Amino acid sequence: MKKKEVRVLEELLGSNKKIASEIREKLEKKGILTINILGSPGAGKTSLLESIAEKLKPDHKMAVIEGDIETERDAERIRAKGISAWQIITGGACHLEAKMVGKIFPEIPADLDFLFIENVGNLVCPASYDLGENIRCVLLSVPEGDDKPKKYPKAFTTSDCLVITKSDLLEALPFNLKRAQNEALQINPKLEIFTTSALKDSGISELIDYFLSSLHKLRQKNA
Amino acid sequence: MKKKEVRVLEELLGSNKKIASEIREKLEKKGILTINILGSPGAGKTSLLESIAEKLKPDHKMAVIEGDIETERDAERIRAKGISAWQIITGGACHLEAKMVGKIFPEIPADLDFLFIENVGNLVCPASYDLGENIRCVLLSVPEGDDKPKKYPKAFTTSDCLVITKSDLLEALPFNLKRAQNEALQINPKLEIFTTSALKDSGISELIDYFLSSLHKLRQKNA
Repeated sequence: MKKKEVRVLEELLGSNKKIASEIREKLEKKGILTINILGSPGAGKTSLLESIAEKLKPDHKMAVIEGDIETERDAERIRAKGISAWQIITGGACHLEAKMVGKIFPEIPADLDFLFIENVGNLVCPASYDLGENIRCVLLSVPEGDDKPKKYPKAFTTSDCLVITKSDLLEALPFNLKRAQNEALQINPKLEIFTTSALKDSGISELIDYFLSSLHKLRQKNA
Repeated sequence: MKKKEVRVLEELLGSNKKIASEIREKLEKKGILTINILGSPGAGKTSLLESIAEKLKPDHKMAVIEGDIETERDAERIRAKGISAWQIITGGACHLEAKMVGKIFPEIPADLDFLFIENVGNLVCPASYDLGENIRCVLLSVPEGDDKPKKYPKAFTTSDCLVITKSDLLEALPFNLKRAQNEALQINPKLEIFTTSALKDSGISELIDYFLSSLHKLRQKNA
């Protein structure tokens, strides 16, 4: 990159980081755990959120911010589950930025337990933008292939948790679960890894337990 | 975007367009048809190229430029088929640019029939960068879902051809082929659409016929 480009990029990322830190601090004070969901188009981000909503709804309050380039389709799917959802349409931009989340901030109810942010479907660019989350989850679907962590490393090295989705297709497709897990752990040994199928309702409860335990820790820190 | 950002972006795209036009002109003069392949991570770009290589090899000469953020894995897969391949490692960048292709230009043999460029796995950013191609192909794999054209419109509106991949999974997954085709045609009525399975060797010959007929037209124009 040329000098001018690098400077503009650094300014953008610097101001994003500042806004993200403010958002995180405010949400933490309210005792809300914020989770940023990253993944390719079709990795199963919205389906996973639908499954999580079904299981969390009886005892916990969640809301979702949906990021998409165009259409309100994902927010509509979440609302159909009886969950509040805000749609951010980026109009071409390939990732969400903290300032976009900041605009929605005044509307976020104070009594939430979980705020999920579904990023634009893209395994590359969203990894560079902190949105003020406590947990970053990257999704890798079985049809995408087990060779992706090292080909798209930043999404995996900056995440706290890896969710391997569409595990119902493991028998039909040449995806080596051990290879994907090992490769992800090689570049980020701290990753918590879950294997799920929204279709077969498998592995979702374990993922929710991880979110609940993280919520508990956040609130203990506040207490 | 701020004024300064917009200006930097316009400069970048402007200079990219100029380099791309030069590349296209030079390759066309040599009678080489250049095809830019776009798609999400795991859409099946490299598998499609492997299948195309098997079928084209006996009678035509092709080469491949591979774009990836990290690793030389895709180029190695293509070379294993006996096809020349150059790997561009972008080191973080989310798309290929014409200047990256330009660097490889001196190494491209003059007697090629087809030059394929496999872009970085990303359904968003590569759509903004002309690489000097004659044909742009966007891939949409069945596991990604039939709702993607309108959610990620630019990759579809800027392409000449849509290849729906992994059609062997049509029976197992809730993908409505008609919906995907109609939605893509609504935003780009000129799209040529092919439905393929590299695994079952289905639809690849039709796609190759389209490339051959485009090559024929290019060379007629030169004659």
